[in-house]
Amino acid sequence: MSAFPVLQHHLLFLRPRLHLSFIPFSPRLRRRLFFSAASVQCSSSLPSSSSSTASRDDIDEVAEPPGVPPPPGSGRETQQLIDVNPPRGTRDFPPEDMRLRNWLFQQFREVSRILSFEEVDFPVLESEALFIRKAGEEITQQLYNFEDKGGRRVVLRPEITPSLARLVIKQGKSVSLPLKWFTIGQCWRYERMTRGRRREHYQWNMDIIGVSRVRAEAELVNAIVLLFERLGITSSDVGIRVSSRKVLQAVLQMYAIPERLFAEVCVIVDKLGKITKEEVEKELMSAGVTSEAVKGIVEVLSLTSLDKLEAVLGSDVEAIADLKKFFSLAEHYGYSQWITFDASVVRGLAYYTGIVFEAFDREGKLRAICGGGRYDQLLSTFGSDDIPACGFGFGDAVIVELLKEKGLLPDLGRQVDDIVFPLDEELEGQASMVASALRRKGHSVDLVEDKRLKWVFKHAERVNASRLILVGNSEWQRGMVRVKVLSTREEYETKIDELN
Amino acid sequence: MSAFPVLQHHLLFLRPRLHLSFIPFSPRLRRRLFFSAASVQCSSSLPSSSSSTASRDDIDEVAEPPGVPPPPGSGRETQQLIDVNPPRGTRDFPPEDMRLRNWLFQQFREVSRILSFEEVDFPVLESEALFIRKAGEEITQQLYNFEDKGGRRVVLRPEITPSLARLVIKQGKSVSLPLKWFTIGQCWRYERMTRGRRREHYQWNMDIIGVSRVRAEAELVNAIVLLFERLGITSSDVGIRVSSRKVLQAVLQMYAIPERLFAEVCVIVDKLGKITKEEVEKELMSAGVTSEAVKGIVEVLSLTSLDKLEAVLGSDVEAIADLKKFFSLAEHYGYSQWITFDASVVRGLAYYTGIVFEAFDREGKLRAICGGGRYDQLLSTFGSDDIPACGFGFGDAVIVELLKEKGLLPDLGRQVDDIVFPLDEELEGQASMVASALRRKGHSVDLVEDKRLKWVFKHAERVNASRLILVGNSEWQRGMVRVKVLSTREEYETKIDELN
Repeated sequence: MSAFPVLQHHLLFLRPRLHLSFIPFSPRLRRRLFFSAASVQCSSSLPSSSSSTASRDDIDEVAEPPGVPPPPGSGRETQQLIDVNPPRGTRDFPPEDMRLRNWLFQQFREVSRILSFEEVDFPVLESEALFIRKAGEEITQQLYNFEDKGGRRVVLRPEITPSLARLVIKQGKSVSLPLKWFTIGQCWRYERMTRGRRREHYQWNMDIIGVSRVRAEAELVNAIVLLFERLGITSSDVGIRVSSRKVLQAVLQMYAIPERLFAEVCVIVDKLGKITKEEVEKELMSAGVTSEAVKGIVEVLSLTSLDKLEAVLGSDVEAIADLKKFFSLAEHYGYSQWITFDASVVRGLAYYTGIVFEAFDREGKLRAICGGGRYDQLLSTFGSDDIPACGFGFGDAVIVELLKEKGLLPDLGRQVDDIVFPLDEELEGQASMVASALRRKGHSVDLVEDKRLKWVFKHAERVNASRLILVGNSEWQRGMVRVKVLSTREEYETKIDELN
Repeated sequence: MSAFPVLQHHLLFLRPRLHLSFIPFSPRLRRRLFFSAASVQCSSSLPSSSSSTASRDDIDEVAEPPGVPPPPGSGRETQQLIDVNPPRGTRDFPPEDMRLRNWLFQQFREVSRILSFEEVDFPVLESEALFIRKAGEEITQQLYNFEDKGGRRVVLRPEITPSLARLVIKQGKSVSLPLKWFTIGQCWRYERMTRGRRREHYQWNMDIIGVSRVRAEAELVNAIVLLFERLGITSSDVGIRVSSRKVLQAVLQMYAIPERLFAEVCVIVDKLGKITKEEVEKELMSAGVTSEAVKGIVEVLSLTSLDKLEAVLGSDVEAIADLKKFFSLAEHYGYSQWITFDASVVRGLAYYTGIVFEAFDREGKLRAICGGGRYDQLLSTFGSDDIPACGFGFGDAVIVELLKEKGLLPDLGRQVDDIVFPLDEELEGQASMVASALRRKGHSVDLVEDKRLKWVFKHAERVNASRLILVGNSEWQRGMVRVKVLSTREEYETKIDELN
């Protein structure tokens, strides 16, 4: 074939890819892989490319020595005209990573089906206005936002709940409440950090719209527990901490702190464990909370017993009634062993108003696995009538780390029914005919040509093929093909028409 | 519950949503729906919200009378604090639209499995450099591009092939060729038009990397035909036009036109049928093609017979050999009736080098359903070794229009196994227990509370529930629940432990 080099000179000439061993970065950064780290275990034969991606991601943020030449023999002498890596902080999904992602999403979908939730989806690009909240949340400080060519402020969404609320309002009276919706979508953030943190992840969301009572939260936690059980995770691996924002609300009322400070206080208090207690106290005070109230807040948040909480707040506050109800329902559902009351759970989103919860690994090595809660005010702040709602978000990163750690990642190989191989180039058409007939029957058929038989056998093993169908001249003359069943090594001839 | 109005005053105050009936727009625009138009047919009970979205999308582009008040009684008096519509040109997927999308994607996946392709995925956000081509393609003129906060030029990808090529290069020698990869992903464009065209669509891509011979294209068309057959579309509904870029290449050589003009000529010639012949001729001449060659090009492109093409080009050009081979393979595959030679097929992407094809509805009402071809130079222009490749893209829009027109859209309702309903609020916990037990068995269970029994029956019909399980006081005392099989109206009591 003749060359058409017209494209080449238009391409940006980027520097050759640096060889990884030249770049200093800590082992800790190496560990900071999302999906990718996990994929090593589940890849069948293809070495995962992901770890190098993740590392490069770190490199870009750490010292990058300019113009270091690739070491001889590194296989990197060829100068790339493009950067072969995806944009910083994003992932490619080569087949082995994609199989893992599909498997995980299938678990999400199956649990959602079991809970009889309906799937919905929203654009990954949203109006910025949907996420403008001034309570100081990390999520709104790290918006991946920009102006489109029409001058509109848009974002790659950092979370999905506001889009869901928007659609509920748009649907209006055409839908009857309650709605039980789930979605799996990509979320984005933009942060300048020296860690190899990702800028995107996928998130499973389940939301119940139109149920004001605590059993909605109990349903959501039922879903989370079902997922863990399906994945082989037990309640000794993972727990779910539960509290209510109404605990803080009651404390603020005790100290006559104005309600308008509520969301901001929640967001600050959520930083406990991430920044020091002193810093949290300082932030609370600069938000306008008296030092007496700060002390009260910190004390209450340390409680992990509902009885003690009741002793402090009194038994007539909603927080107590809600939490008691929740724990009682949990017993009926049969997941009490998974949940614990922990007043320190506040969650970082501004809009939660009631029960909040998060799942965590009991060894305490990882970040929260998922988190959620009640957000009864979000729809009305968007201009709708008051509609109670609750939901959770469950990312694709921490769960995979956990599954990897527990040795629970499935072995996901390729799976092919038949490999069709012509023993002679002239039989290309005949092989196509055989492949086409088997495909019409729904078989997964790999048509292989221009290879040696030895390669074909190796390939068959690599893709877990069930059968090898050899199209040879002498058999074809007799209207036959040769079939080799790969598990039993059985081999026989069969009429082309009778091949099933 | 007490109110926490802290969020409200931070939200942008957007104008109230305009009532649609106030806005003038043509019936033609109404027809320009993607998925949405289709969803009406397949929605079960919930009225689709999509048509209003699509209309609004048009409105934004057509005259938008500022500040027209909503008509009294329109139900739109409430002032929205947010715009309830997704960003212009994008879609929400409420449950009925999502069911259709999932169904379509499932067909894509199933055909890909049958062809033994592996699924991969790439970030929807890519480096702009990956798409910089100066051949004047529409796709690169309508990039949804911007600068990220780190000053990098990025795009919401307009197509997927360059990402795929990038990953192939990144994987390097760790993978063995050929690769057969598929992906389903969202693609974006930004255009200022007065039509209600979308800025995003989903695209199914199948690509074969590492096969230089025409049978790779024959495999791809096998996949497309299998998909049509599975959807109930016949070869009298749809045809696939096939040609080769080497036809144009041969013509250019005949007229001694320099090869560097090749891609640009292809892109211009592809506009035939979209702009007038005279305009195309003018563009060719300003690109540097002689008027004699322009005449030759236009003449050759009008051919729809391989024999006549051979008479013009001679039998020793690659174009003829490739096309003959392709049509011969098509006979073996058994899809000859679907394909026709048509020299006017060029496709609009700059990087195609060999066989090109596109599927079209024979009534000629719609745009191309899918299109693809060979792109043997793309990987080397990215800095890799020469690696032959071919693939196609198949959008989610035109196919749904076609299915709708042919009455082939499936009836996709909800499907729930059991509805559990406590007849008494006190039995909330007991109902949760029953629901939880059934869910552990994999049943899809909707737990309904706080509704009248009449509503529950209507709901059961709406969600196609198989059984209604009533938790009543007197039965529970006896360790029983009441089961109603909804298809047969059969009703019986069963022990709680024996409920299956």
